[in-house]
Amino acid sequence: MARKTGSHSEITGPLVREAAERLFARHGYAAVSMRQIAGEVGVQAGALYNYTPDKQSLLYDMMSTHMQSLLQSWSDADPGGTPMDRLQAFTRHHIHFHLQRPDAVFIAYMELRNLEAQNFARIEVQRKAYEMVLENILQDGQGAGAFHVGDVKLAGMAVIAMLTGVTTWFRDDGRLSVEEIANHYWDMVRKAVGA
Amino acid sequence: MARKTGSHSEITGPLVREAAERLFARHGYAAVSMRQIAGEVGVQAGALYNYTPDKQSLLYDMMSTHMQSLLQSWSDADPGGTPMDRLQAFTRHHIHFHLQRPDAVFIAYMELRNLEAQNFARIEVQRKAYEMVLENILQDGQGAGAFHVGDVKLAGMAVIAMLTGVTTWFRDDGRLSVEEIANHYWDMVRKAVGA
Repeated sequence: MARKTGSHSEITGPLVREAAERLFARHGYAAVSMRQIAGEVGVQAGALYNYTPDKQSLLYDMMSTHMQSLLQSWSDADPGGTPMDRLQAFTRHHIHFHLQRPDAVFIAYMELRNLEAQNFARIEVQRKAYEMVLENILQDGQGAGAFHVGDVKLAGMAVIAMLTGVTTWFRDDGRLSVEEIANHYWDMVRKAVGA
Repeated sequence: MARKTGSHSEITGPLVREAAERLFARHGYAAVSMRQIAGEVGVQAGALYNYTPDKQSLLYDMMSTHMQSLLQSWSDADPGGTPMDRLQAFTRHHIHFHLQRPDAVFIAYMELRNLEAQNFARIEVQRKAYEMVLENILQDGQGAGAFHVGDVKLAGMAVIAMLTGVTTWFRDDGRLSVEEIANHYWDMVRKAVGA
């Protein structure tokens, strides 16, 4: 049986999340209302509440889903093997993953301030888990004498910031392909950790 | 003759800019009204208009002043000499300058999307000028055989992102002093550019 466009049955969590993501990235969380999000999805405001109790839950859900995807995607991409192999894979994966979702990356950084305390703490656990992936690779390489860094934790933060920075200037029609950019960044990361 | 607190004569451009900076960093440009900014300064909304025609001018003024300060501060700190000496000075200056004004740094990145086209173009000129400072140092070092980078422009963007990233995790009560952090980052920057 046919359903009306915008009926409750046709809205889904991911659809709501995508609409909210576009609006939060463009205007900022605090400036966007549930009514605007409903408008972006193409439904009445009341229908949204079948999918999310409030705007804060939507923000938390969006940021948490982003971090889960990142952790899962890395887990699938992790080749194992030497710290050098894994660091190269981490570098390339981080660039590719982040370039594919600039809005989510922007929100992940910008809207931390708007998470309520408990939600912030839970996102911090996920962020820390991702940082620890890199820190463990660096620690293993340092132990094996393959890397030479003064401080493993700082080196991890430096590498992540360097790689995420690509999202702030990358354009599809730029002079370098994603692959060429990843090659150059891998060269810099490798040197930066003394390998 | 004594003036009443909050009279027009006592508000100044910098006072308005600082109040707006706090509010924009906390809530985002789009969510803050001129009335709120006036409240933060401690004056009536009407009084603000002696200092700024509108919120957009305030944002542009804030971001432009930030970039001017950065360029001027580097110009004062630039030791001249070899590309290696200048790169080290650039690294240390960038970290110190940015750690001193986290709100301005956050806004400089986050609120680019809210600049009107002409204002955006003018800020881009300033940002480009700063990137060129580093790019020229790297180019000189590359030419002299002191640095070995695959792509000077990319190396510049990578270094700036790596250094600015410190503002996202630094805490005054952390385990490392600003000086120790700057030492570690200089070591990584030096290696990353193949010096």
